[in-house]
Amino acid sequence: MADNKTLALIGCGLMGGSFALAAQQAHQVHHTIGYSVPHASAHHFYELGVIQSIAASAAEAVAQADIVLIAVPVAAMPSVFAAIAPALPDHALIMDVGSTKRSIIQAAQHHLGARFSQFIAAHPIAGKEKAGHSEPFAHLYQNKNVILCPESQSNPAYLKQAHSLWQAIGATPIILDADQHDRGLAAVSHLPHLLAFAYMDALLQQPDATDLLALGGPGFRDFSRIAGCDPTIWRDILPDNQDQILPLLHAVRQAIDTIENAMTQRDTTQLEAILQRASQARINWK
Amino acid sequence: MADNKTLALIGCGLMGGSFALAAQQAHQVHHTIGYSVPHASAHHFYELGVIQSIAASAAEAVAQADIVLIAVPVAAMPSVFAAIAPALPDHALIMDVGSTKRSIIQAAQHHLGARFSQFIAAHPIAGKEKAGHSEPFAHLYQNKNVILCPESQSNPAYLKQAHSLWQAIGATPIILDADQHDRGLAAVSHLPHLLAFAYMDALLQQPDATDLLALGGPGFRDFSRIAGCDPTIWRDILPDNQDQILPLLHAVRQAIDTIENAMTQRDTTQLEAILQRASQARINWK
Repeated sequence: MADNKTLALIGCGLMGGSFALAAQQAHQVHHTIGYSVPHASAHHFYELGVIQSIAASAAEAVAQADIVLIAVPVAAMPSVFAAIAPALPDHALIMDVGSTKRSIIQAAQHHLGARFSQFIAAHPIAGKEKAGHSEPFAHLYQNKNVILCPESQSNPAYLKQAHSLWQAIGATPIILDADQHDRGLAAVSHLPHLLAFAYMDALLQQPDATDLLALGGPGFRDFSRIAGCDPTIWRDILPDNQDQILPLLHAVRQAIDTIENAMTQRDTTQLEAILQRASQARINWK
Repeated sequence: MADNKTLALIGCGLMGGSFALAAQQAHQVHHTIGYSVPHASAHHFYELGVIQSIAASAAEAVAQADIVLIAVPVAAMPSVFAAIAPALPDHALIMDVGSTKRSIIQAAQHHLGARFSQFIAAHPIAGKEKAGHSEPFAHLYQNKNVILCPESQSNPAYLKQAHSLWQAIGATPIILDADQHDRGLAAVSHLPHLLAFAYMDALLQQPDATDLLALGGPGFRDFSRIAGCDPTIWRDILPDNQDQILPLLHAVRQAIDTIENAMTQRDTTQLEAILQRASQARINWK
């Protein structure tokens, strides 16, 4: 039986809490011990019943764990690895849920030593755009992709366990190497967030911003939705993955220039050709 | 009774057809006569029952009309005004549904002569992103805003009639001058479309575009949705409103530069401050 397992949850937010709830409901986990900075988040999760006990430190949380899930902001990952490394049991599966993978894997390799073979980097493609404290819910990962990025040193048994665990809570595991992950997410997530933030900020700089925003309709709503995301999360992700984001941002600048040029030259033939290929690609998507 | 009125519909697409259906269901219109290039669209609307007769020309369509709705692409508006001007009855309300207003008003003023006082420029903020032939439906304008842009020469009786008509089909009229309309729509519609098209095109230029697009999740879906819009419509709108779009595009480029700079300098304090104000503005929106 899988459900006698103990989960150590480091970081008590939407992503980690939803995993803990889902793993419990899927009988993959019997007991969850949580640790969080700020501590109030762990107490809140205890009151919600998401975790069954509160640890005094990250090291204490993992000491008896069969599964460790690190669900803290990207920039906080290295210090968590350093804190838990001395206390990790020799059989525990260790995972994170961070939005970038190369830097987290590097930090894990640096701090976990021999335990690095037990680490499987994971990124579930799910979340909410609202900043602040969203309550966790067990079906957050239902029918969502989760990208797993094993390294050559990863023990295949842990990869298999991670795969089964995410499947058991309704997610679809996809295995990618960390470079592919970071480039792919730069393209379909980090870059759109950067552009949506920049777009909103440009509107805010206008003296008549309030009048302009009042006219927003469904197109505005969808296009700008991700600009409502948590700034503290994106403050970490963008610098962390900048080497993958920058070449794509350069390509967007070039595409904007090309469209602007066709627009100001009133070269409607070329303009239509560009818009046509972009439109068709979007219509063909999924 | 209002429902003995005849509507002349010039242009048989989603916007015009949905207006005709809605006006008929709201007993604002008794009979709709349609004209369209291509003619097949008018025949299709006749078969659907959206229009009750087909005119051989735009001038023939308007000759007996009480209400004229011009629902053709922005670039085709001047030739329609020229074609209908000699045939317009002296009591007909004339409206368009174009996405830009200054150039259409100019063309109307140029071609309609004394009938210009009967013209009320209108822009219902509704539509669909899919290119090609979307079937019209009567509730397209339900709970949507419609911007009306009267000029100083507009006869107030026609403005009042236009106002009542859009209200009768469930829309909320907003009165703006044409400059405000064109700047506002540049900000919340034209610019996001340009950016979404450019973003999709930049991804398509990548050698691994297929792999990248396969990773798109909910953020990608919403952000890029409007890139699936009809390229023939946007080929017209962008050049037509370029003087309003360009200063805003410049502001977006500056915001991108500022974010890039904070990102590459790893100035997370400044980066968070920018993302924070953009995020808060988006959360506060409506």
